[in-house]
Amino acid sequence: MAIKIHGRQLSPLVRVAMLAMSEMNVESEIIEDDMRSPEYLAKVNPFGKHPAVEFDDFILYESRAILRYVATNYGGLHLLGSTPKEKAMVDQWVEVQGCYFEPPVRSLVTELYFFPKFLERVPDVAVVEENLSKFEKLLNIYDAQLAKTKYLAGDFYSMADLAHIPMLHRFVVSSGKESLVTSRKHVNAWYETITSRPAWKKIVEQYPDV
Amino acid sequence: MAIKIHGRQLSPLVRVAMLAMSEMNVESEIIEDDMRSPEYLAKVNPFGKHPAVEFDDFILYESRAILRYVATNYGGLHLLGSTPKEKAMVDQWVEVQGCYFEPPVRSLVTELYFFPKFLERVPDVAVVEENLSKFEKLLNIYDAQLAKTKYLAGDFYSMADLAHIPMLHRFVVSSGKESLVTSRKHVNAWYETITSRPAWKKIVEQYPDV
Repeated sequence: MAIKIHGRQLSPLVRVAMLAMSEMNVESEIIEDDMRSPEYLAKVNPFGKHPAVEFDDFILYESRAILRYVATNYGGLHLLGSTPKEKAMVDQWVEVQGCYFEPPVRSLVTELYFFPKFLERVPDVAVVEENLSKFEKLLNIYDAQLAKTKYLAGDFYSMADLAHIPMLHRFVVSSGKESLVTSRKHVNAWYETITSRPAWKKIVEQYPDV
Repeated sequence: MAIKIHGRQLSPLVRVAMLAMSEMNVESEIIEDDMRSPEYLAKVNPFGKHPAVEFDDFILYESRAILRYVATNYGGLHLLGSTPKEKAMVDQWVEVQGCYFEPPVRSLVTELYFFPKFLERVPDVAVVEENLSKFEKLLNIYDAQLAKTKYLAGDFYSMADLAHIPMLHRFVVSSGKESLVTSRKHVNAWYETITSRPAWKKIVEQYPDV
């Protein structure tokens, strides 16, 4: 039985779950249900968010928890690091992704892509400026790190890199501000490397950009 | 050699690192350095945040990554869950703590405790109202969960519970809004249980509330 992913494929966080499955060659199907419905809140995720994933005997929500579970249980332990120090670095950069990367980039993607494209809404200039500034500072730190190691947590691809792909890809292809990424040598090389992975390409081919 | 924790003991996130050490009976010392100094940014944490922890051969930042590392490597594997499903539930609730619990409660603690106490600044009523509303909704979900299981991730104490303690304790003892917690039967029982742990009591005794 295919694992069920609750969410819309266009959502970058849902795509983290999809990418985890794709990377592990686990069959999954998308259930595009309403995350605000009483049934969803009662039976799937009381926080009313996507993604949530139905495995054989339980439901799990929160993209990074899903990613860690899939990596651990479907043959992707290498994505969590090998030594204690490597594992710690992966965990550290997973936190950086969640706490420092995701909030400004989600806001930029919402303002510069989702609002104009789907709601005919004009971006809020002040919100965009504030988050571009945060994102630039962050990318400078990333660029310094990626000058030292090929991937964020070291010279190995990990769940910390994977967790960035869907949101970063959406930002690069849809924000009109992609030079923030492409102008930074090490960030750009990393971006090219991680988005070239077959697991991600499969998703982009299956769901071409609209 | 004692492990060095960079940060101020009053900071709830620094206390997560302290509590992890206390729970594992690992000796640690506090280094109250300036997280904005060029030296700190260059050598300890480029994101300019506390806590960061110096182990024998490397530095690790982000409280939840520190917590996971200490639990994994100093005898606290039980804090991460035992079965794959338990581990997944711990990871899920650690994400809930970081994404949904921490932002509103940090804001409330800042407005209602740190600002008046240390900066003689009056709380921003709109910010307080907005975050009280978010926190109440969250606590309703917690209360429903804690009606089913003794701790967040199941009937076992885990790093998901531990990560809540310092910020929740600060909110309860210093915000004047503690009835949000004490009026909810299951949340209150959980709060009493987790803050009664000897590892936490030791920290509160060592650093009495100011």
